[in-house]
Amino acid sequence: MTLTREDFVALDEQDVLAPFADDFSLPEGMIYLDGNSLGAMPKVAMARAKQVIENEWGVDLVKSWNKAGWFNIVEKLGDKVATLIGAKKGEVIYCDSTGLNVYKLVAVGLDIRSDRKKIVMEGSNFPTDNYMVQGLVKQLDKGHEIVFAEGSDILASITEDVAVVCLTHVHYKTGFLHNMKEITAKAHDVGALVVWDLCHSAGALPVDLNGCNVDMAVGCSYKYLNGGPGSQAFVFVAERHHGKAAQPLTGWWGHAEPFGFERNYRPRKDIRQFSTGTEPVVALSMMEIGLDIFMRADMNEIRKKSLKQTDLFIQLIEERLDGHGFSLATPKDHDSRGSQVSIHCENGFAIMQALIADNVIGDFRAPDIMRFGFTPLYVSYVNVWQAVESLKNIMETAAWKRDEFNQKNAVT
Amino acid sequence: MTLTREDFVALDEQDVLAPFADDFSLPEGMIYLDGNSLGAMPKVAMARAKQVIENEWGVDLVKSWNKAGWFNIVEKLGDKVATLIGAKKGEVIYCDSTGLNVYKLVAVGLDIRSDRKKIVMEGSNFPTDNYMVQGLVKQLDKGHEIVFAEGSDILASITEDVAVVCLTHVHYKTGFLHNMKEITAKAHDVGALVVWDLCHSAGALPVDLNGCNVDMAVGCSYKYLNGGPGSQAFVFVAERHHGKAAQPLTGWWGHAEPFGFERNYRPRKDIRQFSTGTEPVVALSMMEIGLDIFMRADMNEIRKKSLKQTDLFIQLIEERLDGHGFSLATPKDHDSRGSQVSIHCENGFAIMQALIADNVIGDFRAPDIMRFGFTPLYVSYVNVWQAVESLKNIMETAAWKRDEFNQKNAVT
Repeated sequence: MTLTREDFVALDEQDVLAPFADDFSLPEGMIYLDGNSLGAMPKVAMARAKQVIENEWGVDLVKSWNKAGWFNIVEKLGDKVATLIGAKKGEVIYCDSTGLNVYKLVAVGLDIRSDRKKIVMEGSNFPTDNYMVQGLVKQLDKGHEIVFAEGSDILASITEDVAVVCLTHVHYKTGFLHNMKEITAKAHDVGALVVWDLCHSAGALPVDLNGCNVDMAVGCSYKYLNGGPGSQAFVFVAERHHGKAAQPLTGWWGHAEPFGFERNYRPRKDIRQFSTGTEPVVALSMMEIGLDIFMRADMNEIRKKSLKQTDLFIQLIEERLDGHGFSLATPKDHDSRGSQVSIHCENGFAIMQALIADNVIGDFRAPDIMRFGFTPLYVSYVNVWQAVESLKNIMETAAWKRDEFNQKNAVT
Repeated sequence: MTLTREDFVALDEQDVLAPFADDFSLPEGMIYLDGNSLGAMPKVAMARAKQVIENEWGVDLVKSWNKAGWFNIVEKLGDKVATLIGAKKGEVIYCDSTGLNVYKLVAVGLDIRSDRKKIVMEGSNFPTDNYMVQGLVKQLDKGHEIVFAEGSDILASITEDVAVVCLTHVHYKTGFLHNMKEITAKAHDVGALVVWDLCHSAGALPVDLNGCNVDMAVGCSYKYLNGGPGSQAFVFVAERHHGKAAQPLTGWWGHAEPFGFERNYRPRKDIRQFSTGTEPVVALSMMEIGLDIFMRADMNEIRKKSLKQTDLFIQLIEERLDGHGFSLATPKDHDSRGSQVSIHCENGFAIMQALIADNVIGDFRAPDIMRFGFTPLYVSYVNVWQAVESLKNIMETAAWKRDEFNQKNAVT
């Protein structure tokens, strides 16, 4: 039976997650399907920033390092995100950016498996992870080799000479979801360590790092976790690896006694060794607001809604937009799908610009992918209908052919 | 002639920088002499944060990467701070933390001078620079050696086998100001490169990087530059070194074509190669407020007032607090003094706690140093008098002997 708008209205009425939309502020009328790039603003974020800026900075000033807990916020937030990704208290810390954290973790992995030279990565991954490891390999200058594999070929590339497997859980472009359990088990079978990048999975779907026996992981906070633009990333290191190898960016926050001001570096033996130096406090404080919303939500319900929304979006595209040159880049199989739908289309750039002009916000990734991210906490079922309705209108009126939509000057 | 309070009132009346105090928000009655640790809050900081959070993030969302210039703010701010430190447009960029930037720059220095193995540093420096270079040396594993020297011995330690000299311009503990021109010239004479850490000099005194022919420099933004707690650091690389060696933390923001999403890293040839990845936008935006105040101020006037204030503070301590066991750690010679006064005192920790309880905010550095930072944009001459008055009262009533002041639980 063909889907109608009423089906989506009915789904919203039954949606247990619907009340969470009130936690976020979005402009009236905007259909925001880009939370996989930059998550929406929690309504309380501004109040928290105001408290940190006006009171903690403006009034208590330097005393806030103790009084407001600035120095320990990196661990406090780590313990919160831990509950979303199957980690334990003390296994996660917020610090630096995703790329820098990939650098640290792969360095540690290569140090622990110093008898091996191969690193398995996905060539088509969002490039910063690959770039960072390329920089590390060049710097180490010890003959390490990055083996680039893709999708289903990755398992076969994990051989007995591999030191570290470093992959992004959900592919930024296609939304393909790797089998974390299977790949991690294969890596361990051959004696390799794994580093998972959770940028497109933390907050998007249930992640079970310890259930999968994962060694190390990183993730960002500004996509599905709604931490604010450019906010800090997190690092997970399984407790069994703590104190084994020190990450090489040895700043004072990772020192055994940071306020001892000793001349020589002595690594802490816990997760804090992975932090480097002073972190942007206002940004961290806003991240906590994003995380606190998740503390009240059920990740399984989020996943259920995400799969339902992406299923419906795919179905609508197929039912209503046949013959417009769209082909699905995202797997239909639930076990292989993250929380986005990506569509190949030759004119994808211009079509996406036309959608954005119609207040349906997705994004474009070269050469031909239109991405739509689904964030069940603030995207409604009717939004799914509306987005396709807009796309249908743009295609049928050929609105995307207007000059203004064909100028490729966007940076994101 | 002995100084009186009236002398300080008169100095405030003549002070051309006095109006700048209105640009900052400080609690009523607080004498804030810790701007060398965390600069005061510019009054406009909150409004700017509100604009970025509520409008750029909350309304324009992902579009702000272009529309609000988020992607280019790192260079825009770099060009602003450049005017304070004697650098040219295009030679400075904001990114990451001071420690991470030291790591990048020393790595580049060692790469350019790959025939040499020695790095000269100051052993008593704020330790994160030393720790970072220790981490780098360990990771490179090519027999590099850090030569630790102190103060006036540093010149002699710069010999023909030195690759890089990496020093902090003003010593965090004593306030000693190194002779940047002389040390840089000596380094160049023997064929070494210099990396200067400007954490305690950018915004504190005129710095002339190009006038001194400096190769590379870093600095933080949350001390004298009033950028907000934990805000990002900056990197300076002299134009003549651009494109010579790529820093090793090779993230996508340093790629020649960041939105090309190529598989392999290709370094940009300009200052942006020193950035790594997505930066905290709210923090960066607030930094601009701090910098914009400096765009209206005259660094020479700031220096003049800073020297006058520190001279007077020293004079008052000597005149009014003789016999209390204080001895000066900061040089009296103007050419060797930053913008702080540090005092050795056996009971310094407790005395500083008593001062803080009296709303005179300085800080303590083990084992026995009380630090007082002077930030001429918002510290008045009367504040100098008041601080010593409070200290005198504490010493004469022995207030610092109370138990509450003797509990060493502070982290900063």
